[in-house]
Amino acid sequence: MKNILLLGAGLSTASLINYLLDNSEENNWKITIADASLNLVNEKIQNHPNAVALEFDAYNEEQMEHEVSKADLVISMLPARMHHLVAIKCVKFKINMVTASYVGEEIREMEEAAKDAGILLLNEIGVDPGIDHMSAMEIIHRIQENGGKLTSFKSSTGGLVAPEYDNNPWQYKFTWNPRNVVLAGQGVSMFIRNGRYKYIPYYRVFTRLEPVHIDGVGEFEVYPNRDSLKYRETYGLSDIETMFRGTLRRPGFCSAWNIFVQLGLTDNSFTMEDSENMTYRDFVNTFLAYHVDKPVEEKLCNYLGISNDSPEMIKLRYLDIFSNEKIGLKNATPAQILQKRLEEKWQLDPGDKDMIVMQHQFEYIKEGKKKKIVSSLVVKGKNNMETAMAITVGVPVAIGAKLILNGIIKSTGVKRPVEKAIYKPVLKELEDYGIKFIEEEFDI
Amino acid sequence: MKNILLLGAGLSTASLINYLLDNSEENNWKITIADASLNLVNEKIQNHPNAVALEFDAYNEEQMEHEVSKADLVISMLPARMHHLVAIKCVKFKINMVTASYVGEEIREMEEAAKDAGILLLNEIGVDPGIDHMSAMEIIHRIQENGGKLTSFKSSTGGLVAPEYDNNPWQYKFTWNPRNVVLAGQGVSMFIRNGRYKYIPYYRVFTRLEPVHIDGVGEFEVYPNRDSLKYRETYGLSDIETMFRGTLRRPGFCSAWNIFVQLGLTDNSFTMEDSENMTYRDFVNTFLAYHVDKPVEEKLCNYLGISNDSPEMIKLRYLDIFSNEKIGLKNATPAQILQKRLEEKWQLDPGDKDMIVMQHQFEYIKEGKKKKIVSSLVVKGKNNMETAMAITVGVPVAIGAKLILNGIIKSTGVKRPVEKAIYKPVLKELEDYGIKFIEEEFDI
Repeated sequence: MKNILLLGAGLSTASLINYLLDNSEENNWKITIADASLNLVNEKIQNHPNAVALEFDAYNEEQMEHEVSKADLVISMLPARMHHLVAIKCVKFKINMVTASYVGEEIREMEEAAKDAGILLLNEIGVDPGIDHMSAMEIIHRIQENGGKLTSFKSSTGGLVAPEYDNNPWQYKFTWNPRNVVLAGQGVSMFIRNGRYKYIPYYRVFTRLEPVHIDGVGEFEVYPNRDSLKYRETYGLSDIETMFRGTLRRPGFCSAWNIFVQLGLTDNSFTMEDSENMTYRDFVNTFLAYHVDKPVEEKLCNYLGISNDSPEMIKLRYLDIFSNEKIGLKNATPAQILQKRLEEKWQLDPGDKDMIVMQHQFEYIKEGKKKKIVSSLVVKGKNNMETAMAITVGVPVAIGAKLILNGIIKSTGVKRPVEKAIYKPVLKELEDYGIKFIEEEFDI
Repeated sequence: MKNILLLGAGLSTASLINYLLDNSEENNWKITIADASLNLVNEKIQNHPNAVALEFDAYNEEQMEHEVSKADLVISMLPARMHHLVAIKCVKFKINMVTASYVGEEIREMEEAAKDAGILLLNEIGVDPGIDHMSAMEIIHRIQENGGKLTSFKSSTGGLVAPEYDNNPWQYKFTWNPRNVVLAGQGVSMFIRNGRYKYIPYYRVFTRLEPVHIDGVGEFEVYPNRDSLKYRETYGLSDIETMFRGTLRRPGFCSAWNIFVQLGLTDNSFTMEDSENMTYRDFVNTFLAYHVDKPVEEKLCNYLGISNDSPEMIKLRYLDIFSNEKIGLKNATPAQILQKRLEEKWQLDPGDKDMIVMQHQFEYIKEGKKKKIVSSLVVKGKNNMETAMAITVGVPVAIGAKLILNGIIKSTGVKRPVEKAIYKPVLKELEDYGIKFIEEEFDI
């Protein structure tokens, strides 16, 4: 019998837990699911015979040591900042570990220690990061093995509402951490295009868009992610002339979002005076110049050069951002206030389903000819627990865990799933879960 | 005989040193001038019999203690971050201290210790902060003593080139720390207008301008400073409906500067890839979208919606920012690259003189009538040592020091010159040095 310790049973773990439970009999697993909330765990395991619920405090070192030491493999779905606390114990007790999060500084520094312990700390095996790495590397390696030379790689991902439930003018609902959506793009975005480095400050990012079409689900726009440059190293493409990563939204989203950015409503660096007594209308008005009697809407339109019946204003009005309703948040930052309003207006309704879309575009030269591969993924949620997000994050993590326990993945050290030995079996099994890219290739 | 210890003989200390030397005989002062560079000191004291030059390392605690303990008063013109090192020793040896810098956190916390030691740590007695505080408080107190109620206070200051030497399209040359000019406005600007809080994100600050006229020197525009709100407390005006502070530039400056901001050229948060091999033209191009053959100038104009013969483009071309000249800076941030170019193009020519302009606008109600006072200051430099900046920073510091030594200023603790007992004698003597506000009052 193999013991799996899953730390964290929160958002997006439903599909992961279902996979582990469904495969527990066949693989002879005992699964301990630990969370600060015992209820949350019990809800998800439904008295499954191979699962044990555990009330857990990740900052209780004694409990952490006790649980980790008994496990054959640890999956951490804790907040990303806590993974290294788990990793330290995994190294100490020589236990393999899997996470869906980016490799942080602390974990990166454990490379030698993990190798010495003979264990694998496998990270970035969710959706983004995760499925993006694996699906891209599969094509990159194939192109290279066939004698092609990659010149351009562009990749974009979006978490959106499924088209059937897409019924607001933003064509967007929250399917993931709202805070990350409100703060998206802050800092400088950097990528390389045709050998030229490109930098975009935050306040221009939502104007630098590219269109994307995905068969079956239609049109999107892409805004650049923060650091595309580092992917050159991750993917072993140091000489590539174009490397771009972005986020997918429906057309028109970014132009309206940019209104918030331009006003200053996404700022998270200061708390506003007297925010508890403010209405949403006051909130917008604090970012506009004083005028004795001009309405807020008119001032906003003049300030940002849009018309009162523009698509942007239609989207803003949908959010009731000009209403005289009290905000009721004390010492709030602008970003916190905006997030509160958005959470009320962009929530998934009961029965709504979400969708993950991803598209890679590769350009390469082979025998003097320029070619292009476009590879696209669409995953829709099954229900309000097994969302597209939960499926695409959780299933690859679970498959990764299984392949390590079964000895099929044998690496040690700190890894991402960019090696063929890892991504190949994972991608193969993902197809059984409907996670399959559609590929087109043509000459350019 | 009284011993004055002056720490720092760098930028803007010429007028301060001249005042001290000129007044040393009459006041029976011995002045020790300490700097890392002995040459810098000797140049400035010219063998004056009452002055001693000292080679000084502000981080040598033993030397600091030795020198401070011998003094009757210490003036610190060191970089602002070092004042607290001096203040600690002043408290220890019970020595009064004067600086022209903002009260930092460390010095604010010495309030009790300074009072217990019976000494005064007098800060913010340069020009801005300094002359702004004193000249404003003189009028604020006068209005209040005459039964008026202040409703609005707006104040702005600029360090510029004197009109006679104003010969570039920006109508601007560096007369003070270039780095601060390049980074000006970063963060969020906040003020209150007619009882409404107003916040402006960095990337809109240079579009939110007000015009200002100053007799004799003409037209200016004002952009908002970062935190105007805190001045309500400093000036004891917690209920005031309008409190605004800004920076003066010649009309058109901000609109062109905003081009740099919009592109991202003022960003100091990251170093650019391969900056040592970049030309200025490449530098600008990295902030614009890729195009196979459109010139950089055309892309910039399209991107930011300006025409090729606009005043903004004339100003940009003056800086040779589109040239194929190599930058020659390694691992540089955008702001560092921009600063290098500006330092070459905005330097004062030999013989050029600078100018400080300041204007306060007060509105108040007295006996039911609305009134306005406009108070303006213009100070021009005498030569390339006794610049307007050096005069307006150094002379109030020197006067403050004299008044403390002569027992006319008797306060203790950590102070700004906002009390009548301090500002009144200082302002009076400043008039002898041509630092005199012109005041107009009218009904509104």
